[in-house]
Amino acid sequence: MRVLNHVKMVKEKKRLSIVKIGGNIVDNPEALELFLKNFNKLEGKKLLVHGGGVMASKMAQQLGIETKMVNGRRITDEETLKVVTMVYSGWINKSIVASLQKIGCNAIGLSGADANCIPSIKRSPVPIDFGFVGDPNPKKVNNNFISQLIESDITPVFCAITHDENGSLLNTNADTVAYSVATGLSDNYITSLYYCFEKEGVLKDVDNPDSLIGTMSFEECERYKKNGVITDGMIPKMDNSFKAINNGVSEVIILHANNLLTRRGTILK
Amino acid sequence: MRVLNHVKMVKEKKRLSIVKIGGNIVDNPEALELFLKNFNKLEGKKLLVHGGGVMASKMAQQLGIETKMVNGRRITDEETLKVVTMVYSGWINKSIVASLQKIGCNAIGLSGADANCIPSIKRSPVPIDFGFVGDPNPKKVNNNFISQLIESDITPVFCAITHDENGSLLNTNADTVAYSVATGLSDNYITSLYYCFEKEGVLKDVDNPDSLIGTMSFEECERYKKNGVITDGMIPKMDNSFKAINNGVSEVIILHANNLLTRRGTILK
Repeated sequence: MRVLNHVKMVKEKKRLSIVKIGGNIVDNPEALELFLKNFNKLEGKKLLVHGGGVMASKMAQQLGIETKMVNGRRITDEETLKVVTMVYSGWINKSIVASLQKIGCNAIGLSGADANCIPSIKRSPVPIDFGFVGDPNPKKVNNNFISQLIESDITPVFCAITHDENGSLLNTNADTVAYSVATGLSDNYITSLYYCFEKEGVLKDVDNPDSLIGTMSFEECERYKKNGVITDGMIPKMDNSFKAINNGVSEVIILHANNLLTRRGTILK
Repeated sequence: MRVLNHVKMVKEKKRLSIVKIGGNIVDNPEALELFLKNFNKLEGKKLLVHGGGVMASKMAQQLGIETKMVNGRRITDEETLKVVTMVYSGWINKSIVASLQKIGCNAIGLSGADANCIPSIKRSPVPIDFGFVGDPNPKKVNNNFISQLIESDITPVFCAITHDENGSLLNTNADTVAYSVATGLSDNYITSLYYCFEKEGVLKDVDNPDSLIGTMSFEECERYKKNGVITDGMIPKMDNSFKAINNGVSEVIILHANNLLTRRGTILK
């Protein structure tokens, strides 16, 4: 009987698509408009996470704020935090919301601080002090509130700013925000996580779109890492993806934003 | 029977405080911290509306964006819209939310575009084209959604950015946002609208805090306007206040932010 109840509950879970877009779309008004139209056509419950693009760096430069890097990674000092919060939570987030509202999608723009949706831990200053940078705890994602929005047919649009629950906003990797929200919401939904980027998916030959790898298991991914097919920036994306699957996300699809509706890309299961 | 039901409904209405703070608090970290502590102590359901302060003007100046004025009023061109959206919806709004979360107030930061909370009409370009400036229609405020948040013990924090439902964000006067939200929500709540500013309230002698006018009717206000006690920037504030009262707001209190809990100020009824 308990098993039957359990099966019944699982069957009643609705599908939820979590879609992450990055700077390559956010920076290009035509690409963004096309993407948002497609996103609006996506059937069922959905949620958007957006990255930042180059606007924050440009803004920092214009304001004379020095970009500090350690080991090729940016440090978020107080002035930089102000700029990324302005650009991500302010202009980009609200522009996307206004555009979605225009085409009939009842969007709401949120940071992780709003309604305590995504509490994060400020990254340890040892060995490298990255400044105001945070890593969310997927177990603390405010599923209850986000699910309430979704069930009211409201589409959450998250920027990659979170907070430490102690008054500090924190700059957060947008892939990690998408991973955390997808993992957290897997308690309530059958979740599909879409990582949209500038390629067709994971390619055997990065210059040949026809070399798309259609599906990939964790073991295959490890092999591709070893033989150099998956390198650099793709490694954390793949790691986030398999971590998501291990933590309850039903599928992760890595694809070009234009293929959101056809779902042509690399499916990880 | 219908009358009885109506009386019952009115009796069941809860109280809601709508508090508006302006630039003088937003620009001063210590004053803001003290204010947010007091706001958090305010009993019952509540909602915050904040103005912008001088940060947007400073930012525009640093970015080399020229401030265009006509008849002493600022024009919001496309570049200025970007700056005010970044500063108001981005940095100020999210900093306030993070600070409220820290002290245990479950705040959510919103613009008028989010969940279509405050649809506005872009101001007519005739006789003066103010650019991306909007005037909300209180009848179109999304009472339903805002009330749902409030009933979930979430405290909405609105910045003074709205949208035209056609893809454009609009710069909006913060007093007018507070007026519109208070008027709209008077369908569901017994509303008190607090306009916090840098004086103790309406003063007979602007340099003497002891000359506070404790209560004021519409007729008294008109007399004070005629004999020069109420002038300049106070006139639109008083007009907004009495418009609010005529449209269902139960009381408007004009007071110093520090007096929020004692309610010492000018009460309009």
